[in-house]
Amino acid sequence: MARAQIGLYGLGTMGSALALNLAQQGLDVALANREVEVFEPFLAEAGALSERLHPHATLESFVADLDVPRIVLFMIPSGPPMDEMIARIAPLLAPGDMIVDAGNADFHDTRRRSAALAKKGLDLVGMGVSGGEEGARNGPSMMVGATTDSWARLQPILERIAARYEGDPCVARLGPDGAGHFVKTVHNGIEYADMQMIAEVYSLLRFGTGRSPTEIGALFSAWNGGALRSYLLEITSDILQSSDPVTGHPAVDVIKDSAGQKGTGRWTVIEALRLGQSASTIEAAVGARSWSAEKDTRQAAEAILGGARLALGLSPEVLADALKAGRILAHAQGFRLLTAASREYQWSLDLARIAEIWRAGCIIRSALLNDLADALRADGAGEPQGHLILAPAIAEDLAASVPALREVVAAAVHAGHALPSLSAALAWYDSMRQGFGTANLIQAQRDVFGRHGFERLGQEGRFHGPWWG
Amino acid sequence: MARAQIGLYGLGTMGSALALNLAQQGLDVALANREVEVFEPFLAEAGALSERLHPHATLESFVADLDVPRIVLFMIPSGPPMDEMIARIAPLLAPGDMIVDAGNADFHDTRRRSAALAKKGLDLVGMGVSGGEEGARNGPSMMVGATTDSWARLQPILERIAARYEGDPCVARLGPDGAGHFVKTVHNGIEYADMQMIAEVYSLLRFGTGRSPTEIGALFSAWNGGALRSYLLEITSDILQSSDPVTGHPAVDVIKDSAGQKGTGRWTVIEALRLGQSASTIEAAVGARSWSAEKDTRQAAEAILGGARLALGLSPEVLADALKAGRILAHAQGFRLLTAASREYQWSLDLARIAEIWRAGCIIRSALLNDLADALRADGAGEPQGHLILAPAIAEDLAASVPALREVVAAAVHAGHALPSLSAALAWYDSMRQGFGTANLIQAQRDVFGRHGFERLGQEGRFHGPWWG
Repeated sequence: MARAQIGLYGLGTMGSALALNLAQQGLDVALANREVEVFEPFLAEAGALSERLHPHATLESFVADLDVPRIVLFMIPSGPPMDEMIARIAPLLAPGDMIVDAGNADFHDTRRRSAALAKKGLDLVGMGVSGGEEGARNGPSMMVGATTDSWARLQPILERIAARYEGDPCVARLGPDGAGHFVKTVHNGIEYADMQMIAEVYSLLRFGTGRSPTEIGALFSAWNGGALRSYLLEITSDILQSSDPVTGHPAVDVIKDSAGQKGTGRWTVIEALRLGQSASTIEAAVGARSWSAEKDTRQAAEAILGGARLALGLSPEVLADALKAGRILAHAQGFRLLTAASREYQWSLDLARIAEIWRAGCIIRSALLNDLADALRADGAGEPQGHLILAPAIAEDLAASVPALREVVAAAVHAGHALPSLSAALAWYDSMRQGFGTANLIQAQRDVFGRHGFERLGQEGRFHGPWWG
Repeated sequence: MARAQIGLYGLGTMGSALALNLAQQGLDVALANREVEVFEPFLAEAGALSERLHPHATLESFVADLDVPRIVLFMIPSGPPMDEMIARIAPLLAPGDMIVDAGNADFHDTRRRSAALAKKGLDLVGMGVSGGEEGARNGPSMMVGATTDSWARLQPILERIAARYEGDPCVARLGPDGAGHFVKTVHNGIEYADMQMIAEVYSLLRFGTGRSPTEIGALFSAWNGGALRSYLLEITSDILQSSDPVTGHPAVDVIKDSAGQKGTGRWTVIEALRLGQSASTIEAAVGARSWSAEKDTRQAAEAILGGARLALGLSPEVLADALKAGRILAHAQGFRLLTAASREYQWSLDLARIAEIWRAGCIIRSALLNDLADALRADGAGEPQGHLILAPAIAEDLAASVPALREVVAAAVHAGHALPSLSAALAWYDSMRQGFGTANLIQAQRDVFGRHGFERLGQEGRFHGPWWG
């Protein structure tokens, strides 16, 4: 007497929105949740859709209500709660059934769980879901790591609920096991950098050119009509034009300048390092949040070191171009990291497809992602080593925008404004475009104090310097 | 019939040098090694010291030659080899014996091993040894994580072989289990930043002011007589004044600009992130090495994007001051990280003592570390939250040198020179000295797309913005 094509466990903000999306697309959904009290208000709010939503007080009846082979989707906090739920539900499932982890899991966990469940004949699908509550409700971007069999079953369901970019559903199987969660992690890392760079430009406009939040919001709104169009710029524009109902001040001025973080930005930076890479623009954004949390220290430091941010003579056009350049470079680092992980884990990630499914539904959706998708679809883009900065169209955009980034960073540095992410982007760009850098000196230093030896130019083998006689 | 006060396993470069140091200080040392062929040449080279060096072909006879309770020191590659050796030697030891891991272990491994061995009554001491071969032979700096009992036994031995700074031996028990290896990891992280910043200044002098390696070496030698005095600057000066015997070119010009790394720099950055910190100056140095490895990409990028590094009008005085500021900030990040770890693991690290034992013997020894030790010994230094930039003497040094750092970074940014580590230092400084930053905007963005809520200024609780009605 099973009624549901899919089961959804976890009626938090994201899970509730996803359940409504599934029901709206005509699917019957079995529901379960840690606390059963949520069902009544949720179903009341669901209105007519509640006919397709079937709440269950026990895992046993939840599972019994699912078509076989079963699909059970979890939208719960990542980490130990997910392990616990797997331990509870696995004994109720049969070989061929599928567990979808739609949370922000660490992809290492997903790989581990996937291997463990495979031994029981169960498929663990790791799926990154981006778009926040609104995306989950009306169409998120979904990054799937799954076996091809599981994907064949999931695809028709997910394509119905996904965001669409000019008709193309923003969902794809990107590889096996942890591939989807890894790509979601990098998505979030890019999101950190994107948010931080917008905040840095806001800071220059606010404290360097003396514009009000409302004026900056209007400017961002104008930018959002052009090449800088993005969801994050759009919401920032709205934020800056909002007033606090209590005080009447600009909303942004009553909020404490201390930002939290949940871990995916940090994970991105750590994975980059483990893979022999550096996601320095993202690291700067993660660092900026960490430093923001130390407000007491910053206030003490301002009293001792001075906090002056001097006036800047930068035009909005130059700032817009600088932001363009910074965003391209942050995305290029993210895609370079995807390439490195794809090689390490033999995922054969389709970078162009990733850019495509990020064009709608997700938090980093933007006009830039359309350009990147096109560049990645072009022949030979990003070779060698998967670098977007080498793709002809992207290199052209950089040539046009990097001079502005130089002007902005130099002016900010002189005037005492902090641009951790934008300056990291420029330092990376200048490092990568120098065929002969300075690591020869580092090699020599390491040989002196640690006898590590070095490579010579145009010669195979390892050598020691004359300092070793 | 035990003859030896200490056993040393592992006669690689560092282990051999340490064995000679111990023998020279009048200790009898039992020796063991994976390959026994090393003994003959090693003892021949040891000359008269060989009387105190007692080689063993088996672990059994090695252990039998040690005074009880035993001290067995391992100087072998970190990771699985150390686990393997512990598994082999532990059954031969008795409660009360001590294993000293003197390699560059991950402090998480040291904590794990220490807890496991404690159950068998064995003490695992994690000891970081810095100074390279020369330091190990004539006096290294040693960072010890040990129980107080083990330290009481080790101290008289280690103080005999340690480097001395004005008579003070550069060795200390810094805390239990992983504390010594953690401090050594951060030491190496600072080393990465220090090396990178010197390389960045070299690059500006070479490619921006057109000086030859010999001229730059002479300049560094002059700097080394003043406030910038450091072992790393000294060896860099020597390197730059060395010629390649094969070609007659400056030695640095025949070395490939691709540097390797073994992991401690990366670990430092990862631990910082895990502790909610950011060691961005060190991350930039780690990143610079990673990017240096992609020489093919850099050459391709130069062909496409252009690799121009334009002339700079910077004086040596300004460059020296910029390096001063950058080094202070890199060290300040390192010490901030030590504070964070000390709180997380309840190590009660004595930051001043750490600075003191880094004044001689180790790779990052420098005049600056003496200043930092003094600043950390002063009352209330670095509060709140263990920040060196708030210590009065250090804040004064920064006030004097940061303007030069601004001038250098801005000029380099305009002229296309890459300064990842120096620009990260400045971005951090400018972030930390702003009592009111820009993370309010980040909080607002997170509330819009993820309903994360935010804190208001001067008000307890979490709130949502007017965008949520």
